[in-house]
Amino acid sequence: MRAEIIAVGTELLLGQTVNTNAAYISQGLAELGIDVYFQTVVGDNEGRIRQAIELARTRAELIVFTGGLGPTQDDLTKDALAALLGRPLSLHEPSMAKIEQLFASRGLHMVESNRRQANMIEGSEPLENTAGLAVGNGLTVDGIHYLLLPGPPREMRPMFDGPAKAWLRSIAGEDRRLFSRTLKFAGIGESSLEEALIDLIEQQTDPTIAPYAKEGEVAIRISTKAVSELEAAERLDVTEAQINARVGKHIFAREDIPLEDAVVRLLRGARFKLASSESLTGGLFAELITNIPGSSGEFVGGVVTYTNMMKHKLLGIPLAQLEGPGAPGAISESTAKLMAERVMELTGSDFGVSLTGVAGPAESEGKPVGLVYFGIAQRGKQTIVHTAHLSGNRNIIRVRAAKAALYRLWQVLAGVEA
Amino acid sequence: MRAEIIAVGTELLLGQTVNTNAAYISQGLAELGIDVYFQTVVGDNEGRIRQAIELARTRAELIVFTGGLGPTQDDLTKDALAALLGRPLSLHEPSMAKIEQLFASRGLHMVESNRRQANMIEGSEPLENTAGLAVGNGLTVDGIHYLLLPGPPREMRPMFDGPAKAWLRSIAGEDRRLFSRTLKFAGIGESSLEEALIDLIEQQTDPTIAPYAKEGEVAIRISTKAVSELEAAERLDVTEAQINARVGKHIFAREDIPLEDAVVRLLRGARFKLASSESLTGGLFAELITNIPGSSGEFVGGVVTYTNMMKHKLLGIPLAQLEGPGAPGAISESTAKLMAERVMELTGSDFGVSLTGVAGPAESEGKPVGLVYFGIAQRGKQTIVHTAHLSGNRNIIRVRAAKAALYRLWQVLAGVEA
Repeated sequence: MRAEIIAVGTELLLGQTVNTNAAYISQGLAELGIDVYFQTVVGDNEGRIRQAIELARTRAELIVFTGGLGPTQDDLTKDALAALLGRPLSLHEPSMAKIEQLFASRGLHMVESNRRQANMIEGSEPLENTAGLAVGNGLTVDGIHYLLLPGPPREMRPMFDGPAKAWLRSIAGEDRRLFSRTLKFAGIGESSLEEALIDLIEQQTDPTIAPYAKEGEVAIRISTKAVSELEAAERLDVTEAQINARVGKHIFAREDIPLEDAVVRLLRGARFKLASSESLTGGLFAELITNIPGSSGEFVGGVVTYTNMMKHKLLGIPLAQLEGPGAPGAISESTAKLMAERVMELTGSDFGVSLTGVAGPAESEGKPVGLVYFGIAQRGKQTIVHTAHLSGNRNIIRVRAAKAALYRLWQVLAGVEA
Repeated sequence: MRAEIIAVGTELLLGQTVNTNAAYISQGLAELGIDVYFQTVVGDNEGRIRQAIELARTRAELIVFTGGLGPTQDDLTKDALAALLGRPLSLHEPSMAKIEQLFASRGLHMVESNRRQANMIEGSEPLENTAGLAVGNGLTVDGIHYLLLPGPPREMRPMFDGPAKAWLRSIAGEDRRLFSRTLKFAGIGESSLEEALIDLIEQQTDPTIAPYAKEGEVAIRISTKAVSELEAAERLDVTEAQINARVGKHIFAREDIPLEDAVVRLLRGARFKLASSESLTGGLFAELITNIPGSSGEFVGGVVTYTNMMKHKLLGIPLAQLEGPGAPGAISESTAKLMAERVMELTGSDFGVSLTGVAGPAESEGKPVGLVYFGIAQRGKQTIVHTAHLSGNRNIIRVRAAKAALYRLWQVLAGVEA
């Protein structure tokens, strides 16, 4: 079944509101095995809403509306659809009773326009709104299904997940649902990953293989439609094995978790304690790790030594290492090594990770923007220092540096060769 | 001029990505006085992209594309539009040189498909991509304007705000432009702010007053259309004065800068040095401040003392203060005070800020999720400790805690009464 989502609301066209509903509904429809071909946003204008519906009817069997069910004169979705279908609107008595009760219980006078929220298009099934007053509608006319949901996400989401999904299942009558698995990658760019898998991505239609990138990480989603999780798993396993054979050493997770989560899990499994010492990232590395609930068992803390004086005062790095003619400087392999080792000693941890480099916008110590050194000290082992040349603006370089350090640490913990 | 935004990407139709670009572009177009009538989302399918373009040409004079400019076979926006317009694609040499340079500088083999990112539709103006490789296009054919922007927000935003807006201004040729001023607020919630200004917001049509909230901060945007900046400034000044008379003590900036930027500026003006000591925020406070370019002049660094042992080892806080029967515990006013004072002493700074509390998901030391203590130590002054009860999930509590600490520090630096 092909679907189209029509979000109604001038605030979306003005950019005052981000259309999170379209993403939420799309994801839910995908899980039900329903393909979304278009998403449309239209303002609170009856003519243009009609125009959008007429178009959608030519290219979809299911049209999902969100927004425009409220009490005001701007809320026109039900009116526009009812007029187009030539069907009258009538009051849904239970919804009306709920609205009246609410106003009575608060001792408020009910503005007449609130009755509009109890409207139903003739022949439709009411969908309960547990978080608000506007009742949802589901109806089928001439083989096309119409689902009307409210606009505010806190009302839309429970209605969609509850009564709307039940209604969709009843009309879809399809047994096959979409099952997906996400593989997360580190240490490889989106284009290199795609190149390594291009023949699979292009030739394989079931399961499908879709690479995507977000926030310094790369992922692949493999999806198949099946009647059961077991049937899906069998097919997904085969595809995963093919991918694994080519780029397996870059896979850090078989679910949609961030790299820092994978690192924390490995630390936990080995009962290792980690500490960090950051310069250019200014606390971001620690922040990413501590954003994982329960990470205090593995991450003890660290220092943000943003200036040379702090590298000296907090970590005891000699000033002669950092400044003056012939000194390696703060942005150097040897300083990264010292930072990692000193913070490990200072905190009594098993691992010390350091980051020092140039986030920009200007160069520093005559070293270029994007040059970053990562130190990984491990108790009883030789300290490793990696160098990276990162691109992007200040913020992007900081994020990429923190992720690159996490990746290097992950390699050590996972026993994966560099 | 009527505009339509076409976002291209199957990940949007699958709900894997939220279409924040449509909102961002819509807002920018509104500021230029360009009305958006429709937003459309279409997948990575050349036929359907063409269909969307053909429709948009019947109802808009400006079509803004976002997405589908990347290197892969799924990136089809330029191909689809070029085919529809019957115009060839050609390489933009400076963009191609940039791509080659980047790969060479990293010692990487350039995958052939990367050349696609330098493609231009014949007759279009190149729009520079400062954060990525895909060049933007702006062109006008048969009275319809086409603007092609990349999909990743961190590439799209600078291109849209810079070269694309310049191109739009050149084609719009309108005399009256929208001028806006942003007032940033701290220490007051969005609903309280709106309540204090509700009569102005509702009754005043020029300038308009629009409150909005983002990432733990509240802002008001006042806007007016005028032929010159001077004419606009006169009207904006009057409105700003009205707002200032009611809620002026919460205004920390008269431009759209984050609170940490305002704090860094005040520190700089007074030549103060700041250090931080964080528990529940795990480095986020330091990260926010160091994200401001040049903040190393004011922020020397700090410690992330995520465990009690680190509070003891790095800051010298007695374990008896933190643990055991009758101890105040890590989450306490007295620990916040010690953390702030110790980090100030340890680093030799003028200010020490501390954060300790419960980010969740579970309570800690029998103290509830959302309870946070902030210490502000100042050389030669009494240390101040504030308590807050914050709501939200783990991540939101951490952001709100960091912003609340920044607000308390801002109050001290700005000499604003609590």
